[in-house]
Amino acid sequence: MAYSLLEMDKDVLDEFAYSIKEVKDKLHHCPICGLYTEDENCEICSSAERDHNTCIVVSYPKDVYAFEKAKNFNGVYHILFGDLSATKGIGIKALNVDTLLDRIPKEGIKEVILATNPTIEGETTAFYLSDLLKRYNVTVTRIAFGLPIGGNIDYADSLTITKALEGRTKIKE
Amino acid sequence: MAYSLLEMDKDVLDEFAYSIKEVKDKLHHCPICGLYTEDENCEICSSAERDHNTCIVVSYPKDVYAFEKAKNFNGVYHILFGDLSATKGIGIKALNVDTLLDRIPKEGIKEVILATNPTIEGETTAFYLSDLLKRYNVTVTRIAFGLPIGGNIDYADSLTITKALEGRTKIKE
Repeated sequence: MAYSLLEMDKDVLDEFAYSIKEVKDKLHHCPICGLYTEDENCEICSSAERDHNTCIVVSYPKDVYAFEKAKNFNGVYHILFGDLSATKGIGIKALNVDTLLDRIPKEGIKEVILATNPTIEGETTAFYLSDLLKRYNVTVTRIAFGLPIGGNIDYADSLTITKALEGRTKIKE
Repeated sequence: MAYSLLEMDKDVLDEFAYSIKEVKDKLHHCPICGLYTEDENCEICSSAERDHNTCIVVSYPKDVYAFEKAKNFNGVYHILFGDLSATKGIGIKALNVDTLLDRIPKEGIKEVILATNPTIEGETTAFYLSDLLKRYNVTVTRIAFGLPIGGNIDYADSLTITKALEGRTKIKE
């Protein structure tokens, strides 16, 4: 990064420095979903073209950009800002969960898609949330785990192979 | 490999050379599933402890070892020895399909799990086979595609994200 900065023109560098200085003043978390925004609410939460009945729950803002890049989802998001972790001492109070529970009746969310990472922390968080959501009138789903597209069976680890086998889908009865 | 050979003791090297010489004489394909074996039929096909009603169909022998390493499947296998490929000119006649069709009634196979790779060729092969198996009294399933275990959503490619979303499973109605 240091070398790149040295290669930049003086005016680009000034602009860059100004942007860094401004980032905390200008950007804030959307009070609904938690995504970064310059406006009151984020672009996704304020869009009338998005399906506000389907909500993907992710651990971090960068996960939202991964789904948006895939251009295959037209619903809304909710960011937890972390995962439950016994080793890091992160409990449910540290996560952005209460707002999610408020949103379900308020926005009329019909499906919550748990998209925390396929790691121990992510799985624990998804398990905890699915238990918590039992009291709510909402469908709860979990994103699929298995072989990544373009991948190779003989390069896959045993846990992924096991998940791919367990999660197999019926093509024909 | 050359450097490793030079580091080996003379007697290990002799034994290694002998093994290479013998490999084609000793090993052959199991006439049932196509796996390599020294015996008449392979260990899996001749085992009474395996479930002969569930059969995973793979493209290559090395894929069988990936499933066996995962230690989560107790059924049998069938190896196609390739995938359908328009660019490489590989048609259905070049693949080990007829034996599979014979095995279904003969061994009483109830479920065929299509485990070809999540590539264009692998998907084409799975699609063709599922169509072919329509005439048979057998359940056809496809292994799951999605995020690999231990992976990260923000590192996953868009196609994998799309598959993970499409293939989501219901935890709670």
